[in-house]
Amino acid sequence: MQPTNKIRFESFSDGVFAIAVTLLALELRVPYLKTTQSSFSLQALVPLIPSLLTFVLSFVAIAIFWVNHHQLSQVLQRINKRRILWLNILLLLFVTLIPFVTETMSLNAPSALAVSMYAFVLFGASVSFSLLRYWIHKTSHDEHITMTRSYIGPIIYLLAVLAPIVSITLGYILLAIPPLFYFLPKSSIIEDDSTD
Amino acid sequence: MQPTNKIRFESFSDGVFAIAVTLLALELRVPYLKTTQSSFSLQALVPLIPSLLTFVLSFVAIAIFWVNHHQLSQVLQRINKRRILWLNILLLLFVTLIPFVTETMSLNAPSALAVSMYAFVLFGASVSFSLLRYWIHKTSHDEHITMTRSYIGPIIYLLAVLAPIVSITLGYILLAIPPLFYFLPKSSIIEDDSTD
Amino acid sequence: MQPTNKIRFESFSDGVFAIAVTLLALELRVPYLKTTQSSFSLQALVPLIPSLLTFVLSFVAIAIFWVNHHQLSQVLQRINKRRILWLNILLLLFVTLIPFVTETMSLNAPSALAVSMYAFVLFGASVSFSLLRYWIHKTSHDEHITMTRSYIGPIIYLLAVLAPIVSITLGYILLAIPPLFYFLPKSSIIEDDSTD
Amino acid sequence: MQPTNKIRFESFSDGVFAIAVTLLALELRVPYLKTTQSSFSLQALVPLIPSLLTFVLSFVAIAIFWVNHHQLSQVLQRINKRRILWLNILLLLFVTLIPFVTETMSLNAPSALAVSMYAFVLFGASVSFSLLRYWIHKTSHDEHITMTRSYIGPIIYLLAVLAPIVSITLGYILLAIPPLFYFLPKSSIIEDDSTD
Repeated sequence: MQPTNKIRFESFSDGVFAIAVTLLALELRVPYLKTTQSSFSLQALVPLIPSLLTFVLSFVAIAIFWVNHHQLSQVLQRINKRRILWLNILLLLFVTLIPFVTETMSLNAPSALAVSMYAFVLFGASVSFSLLRYWIHKTSHDEHITMTRSYIGPIIYLLAVLAPIVSITLGYILLAIPPLFYFLPKSSIIEDDSTD
Repeated sequence: MQPTNKIRFESFSDGVFAIAVTLLALELRVPYLKTTQSSFSLQALVPLIPSLLTFVLSFVAIAIFWVNHHQLSQVLQRINKRRILWLNILLLLFVTLIPFVTETMSLNAPSALAVSMYAFVLFGASVSFSLLRYWIHKTSHDEHITMTRSYIGPIIYLLAVLAPIVSITLGYILLAIPPLFYFLPKSSIIEDDSTD
Repeated sequence: MQPTNKIRFESFSDGVFAIAVTLLALELRVPYLKTTQSSFSLQALVPLIPSLLTFVLSFVAIAIFWVNHHQLSQVLQRINKRRILWLNILLLLFVTLIPFVTETMSLNAPSALAVSMYAFVLFGASVSFSLLRYWIHKTSHDEHITMTRSYIGPIIYLLAVLAPIVSITLGYILLAIPPLFYFLPKSSIIEDDSTD
Repeated sequence: MQPTNKIRFESFSDGVFAIAVTLLALELRVPYLKTTQSSFSLQALVPLIPSLLTFVLSFVAIAIFWVNHHQLSQVLQRINKRRILWLNILLLLFVTLIPFVTETMSLNAPSALAVSMYAFVLFGASVSFSLLRYWIHKTSHDEHITMTRSYIGPIIYLLAVLAPIVSITLGYILLAIPPLFYFLPKSSIIEDDSTD
């Protein structure tokens, strides 16, 4: 039986995730295309590539948080701790900042500081998520919590905060690791669920 | 019995569709109307017509995706494949880009490249939707999937990507076909449902 | 028993209403306040008054549509007609245009044409709503539909479209009537519901 | 058993809260960072600090309203009074204005008038919430309503409206009290709920 507050916990979170993801595209600057029919030149799109790549990176990052949040909240039975509510709000605070740092990184590229800011926000989101995950499992008296995976996100993003001091490129590479890490291995989390 | 994750799958998608549709109108540029009471001239609205038509075109395109998504998710029983979750996210990625390409097409009109970009995003959305449709039916062990209709959208939009190289007008005509195709024939999908 | 599609019909509509209402405030232009502590002057707020009044007018108009939509959808049992889905989408199309015409009216004030545009969008929304109301009641085999109230909104808004040709002030007065009409009389629709 | 209208009451409110919170971050101005790799200087972030602090202040304020709204609506059984619907809409009206006054306060800082405007919107929201709380409890025939806490928010925000006439700093301090008051004391409202 679903307690009402779980539904609202989810619907408020889904709202924030959905808006953050849609605002990402809103932040894309409309290009000025001089091309008319006589000069259909794809080169006019070249300046758009960096911001489109950043858009995809952020979109995927938010989507991964949403998918994980979705799976996590299935464990949750009842929100009987204020701590869980506020860790979730902290996660959402960082999520709402993602469109802002995405645009900061796009418009200032290449800027070491902007890459660090971007990585810092994702670091904050992944730390909040790991804490939320820890407390939800603890509250559910779930003994077999493997927190190993929960360290990876925060650590990589922390490295990505520091990396740009040395090399912007290294920063970008580190930022691309969590999405790749998420898709490449055969982490068949949902499939497992269904066989349970 | 609704598994929770289906509810969130739908509410996240509904959120993105609702925001995308509302942002379309936000992208409309507020006109500067010099008319005062003495000169109530409808001619001041003429420059607004192209962007209003584009707004309606995009609004209807997103609404069709929403209606189809709505019907498709009724087939869905349980999201037990990560593939379905991510095909849906891919569809939403293209949907969030619709306001951006709509504004790009409006502000640069007439631009062959902008029409191609616009068509490309709708092409991406319709391919994602067809794949999503295929996998949801397959997962539900639904044998009588008629994928014929699923080819039409992607093909028309692909032609609309290429058409502007030859003629911008042809591009616009192709973009107008899917909505017309949707409304004109007596495709009484929902009515059938109710008699079943 | 709620059919799934009714839930999504409502959640998509709620999303659009909620976003439209929130974007209204986003369209308010941030004022430049020269006042520092030494000169705390409320006069700096005077130029904000027209746009704040317009904001409240539009907010209340959308809220009334939401409240009525909310009550109407309780009558709805199953969405078995495509017509109902698309009349609802038409209503939402006009709702998404409200922030745009609100800003147009604010920034161009006083402009007869902008008031007409604003009234036209509300006219479109109220006609769509009345049609939706008619078809939902008809589909539910509800015999005692009193459509009298359904004519009032469209008629007043139609007058408000035409009034600015003669007088902008008359246009504003007509636009203010539906909200006042809604609040002043003892139309205890919800209370009746509960005693039934 | 949940009456449908309660679900929509909540989903519409959640939508507005979620959008307001996400738009807060949208209002942050993307900084121009001159730093390249050779000059990774955190000083470039100093001008961002005031608007980030204001963002956090507003985010937490909206989140507290959401958490309280969430708890309040659990008391609510059926919305059988139009008054409750409209007090909620009044609360949401003030919530949608929070991103606007947040940006006004950020961009005009230090401005006594902007701080007063900001405090006034939060004052309006907290008065609406207290009235809503009163009527929901009254409708639910709930005898043990302790309204004491309901006076604190409105009073502090009213003081914060007036304080900037004397001192902007005092205004900021007063604005920071409700969030601190909320987190510091051991007000274990949710925990109590679960033991009941």
